[in-house]
Amino acid sequence: MSDAYAGRRERVREHCSAAGADAALITRAANVRYLTGCAPCGATLLLTRERVLLALPDDLPADDTGEHLIAADVTQVPVPVSAGVDTALAAAGAAARLGVADLAVEEHDLTVSRHRAVASLAEGARLADLGQVVERLRVVKDEHEIADLRIAAEIADQALGELLESILVGRTERHLAMELERRMIDHGADRAAYPVSVGTGSHSGQPAHQPTDRRVEEGDFLTVVMGAQYRGYGVSTARTFVIGAAPAPWQVELHRLVFRAQRAAREALGPGVEQYVPDRAARQILEAAGHAEASPHPVGHGIGLEIREAPRLGPSDMGKLDSRVPVTVGPGVHLPGKGGVRIEDTLVVRPPEEGGPELLTITTKELLAL
Amino acid sequence: MSDAYAGRRERVREHCSAAGADAALITRAANVRYLTGCAPCGATLLLTRERVLLALPDDLPADDTGEHLIAADVTQVPVPVSAGVDTALAAAGAAARLGVADLAVEEHDLTVSRHRAVASLAEGARLADLGQVVERLRVVKDEHEIADLRIAAEIADQALGELLESILVGRTERHLAMELERRMIDHGADRAAYPVSVGTGSHSGQPAHQPTDRRVEEGDFLTVVMGAQYRGYGVSTARTFVIGAAPAPWQVELHRLVFRAQRAAREALGPGVEQYVPDRAARQILEAAGHAEASPHPVGHGIGLEIREAPRLGPSDMGKLDSRVPVTVGPGVHLPGKGGVRIEDTLVVRPPEEGGPELLTITTKELLAL
Repeated sequence: MSDAYAGRRERVREHCSAAGADAALITRAANVRYLTGCAPCGATLLLTRERVLLALPDDLPADDTGEHLIAADVTQVPVPVSAGVDTALAAAGAAARLGVADLAVEEHDLTVSRHRAVASLAEGARLADLGQVVERLRVVKDEHEIADLRIAAEIADQALGELLESILVGRTERHLAMELERRMIDHGADRAAYPVSVGTGSHSGQPAHQPTDRRVEEGDFLTVVMGAQYRGYGVSTARTFVIGAAPAPWQVELHRLVFRAQRAAREALGPGVEQYVPDRAARQILEAAGHAEASPHPVGHGIGLEIREAPRLGPSDMGKLDSRVPVTVGPGVHLPGKGGVRIEDTLVVRPPEEGGPELLTITTKELLAL
Repeated sequence: MSDAYAGRRERVREHCSAAGADAALITRAANVRYLTGCAPCGATLLLTRERVLLALPDDLPADDTGEHLIAADVTQVPVPVSAGVDTALAAAGAAARLGVADLAVEEHDLTVSRHRAVASLAEGARLADLGQVVERLRVVKDEHEIADLRIAAEIADQALGELLESILVGRTERHLAMELERRMIDHGADRAAYPVSVGTGSHSGQPAHQPTDRRVEEGDFLTVVMGAQYRGYGVSTARTFVIGAAPAPWQVELHRLVFRAQRAAREALGPGVEQYVPDRAARQILEAAGHAEASPHPVGHGIGLEIREAPRLGPSDMGKLDSRVPVTVGPGVHLPGKGGVRIEDTLVVRPPEEGGPELLTITTKELLAL
């Protein structure tokens, strides 16, 4: 893996050289991890032509260093953050001592105040904007990264599968959400990729729903939106079920509609496909059924070290998808006061000769009656 | 409560007037909440001399608006964040339309990229730095805020008390941590104030310890570091127990030492006391016992809408404590490979005539054998 990190850093260096920068200061946690293996902990990476310095908080527990899996060729510099020192400032000071004249920084990550302090500590170095160079490198994953995503998806599927075998009626959204988080950790997740959302009855299918104390009742739709993180890599999935023996006709119809929309978006994925195409495929189906306003969100987005990363799959997103880009595809419809359906998968874009999109989250998308 | 929010906003306006700014753009989540009641959700507040505009994400679930308790005299402006729009930019556009010429922004919160975009959308308005004006207002709490902190502390105490009555041997740190988070939510917490840390055996007393799959064993020290959040206000507490019938002599001694250091720091709290004094009180006791390097962290810090806020109680922090400032006091000692002790409370600084420091986290600090 050290080779993979070194290769990624070499590409950042090439970009810096081309842009006339001596060195790059990487502060964004996911980018630091991508280039060093160091899990998010407030570390800052200084990448010069010859050196790789990682300014690390001094209060990392000693026996955690192994867990952080920091690449062996990275020089670790402990910074007394316990005394209030910022690792970015320590790294900027190191840049000054190494004679860096042009330093590229992540202006989308540094606050104005930190940027000013970095400029001051870098003593006369000219600061430039590195922009989203590392984010762009992160879009296409290698097979090691995809293997981690597969494990994250298995964990989420296992946790959800176990929950579906238990009694749900009478339990609260909050309890079910916590139960799912616990089960993902039991199955080896670093953590839930984001707080699990469970919505039942009129809350089902609602975007950004925070679990409440509402209890699951017979006849409810139940929507679960969840993801696991494994070795830093996250996936996301959503399913909607019905509680009790026989779903109502409107529930069957709405579920079938969202299922069709989600399948159309999934089937639209492929290398060379424009980013807006999967969204349009889903949106056309929902709009034809009269749900024009139902889904203001893009149908999906890239996923990996951050739960929402490039590329975005929204109605006006230009640019083409590449092979080995993991994305979410998750349309939904919510009828205020009534409930709704959301169905989401994480898939990896693959060409037809590799079998087309690789589905990572394999829990059934049928309308199960639980 | 609307009056309280209006009063706080008036003080920000007074500061802006004095500094020559027409308006303030508040982006930091805790500051937006402090001035409007709006829970963290990516909202941005624009405060002009006459207007109070809150740019809010359009995907807040409708029935959540009540829960967010947004002050009634705030004009809410939904922003299509689902289409990728940033509420800070929407608010900057509104400032331009209202003819704002001098706009104060939170440079410690805005990234360089967002600051540039705000400047562009504010069309010719001069941008100045508001600095930590709102953070400074937040230091001294009113009695409503302290009442919320008291409830948060009760919740944490209840959850911890219940756990202490259960069987602990054989359970993993991760399970115990999740159990505590679940119990806090059961007792009405918004959430855990931060991820609960449970450390057992050699992990006990370790700063920033992330729970592992290590199981609790007879003879272990067990350290729990936890906090609840209630209506946005968080508290933090830490306790160390021993597992089994009789603690070893070194455990009794170390626990007694940290207990004495923590008590000395607590007793040093008072209005007019310099911020470094409680830390020095604890540190002198630990150093006299030969633990000079044991505790690089400040003994405590302010707490409220953020889990770590002003004032910091570190060895070199100048400035005097005020009445009605909630702070944590939590020294610890960790012996590598062996374990350690941490004891932390949240207290409110009060003058002697009000009975001195008000202890919020009242779980016993005795060395219980569980």
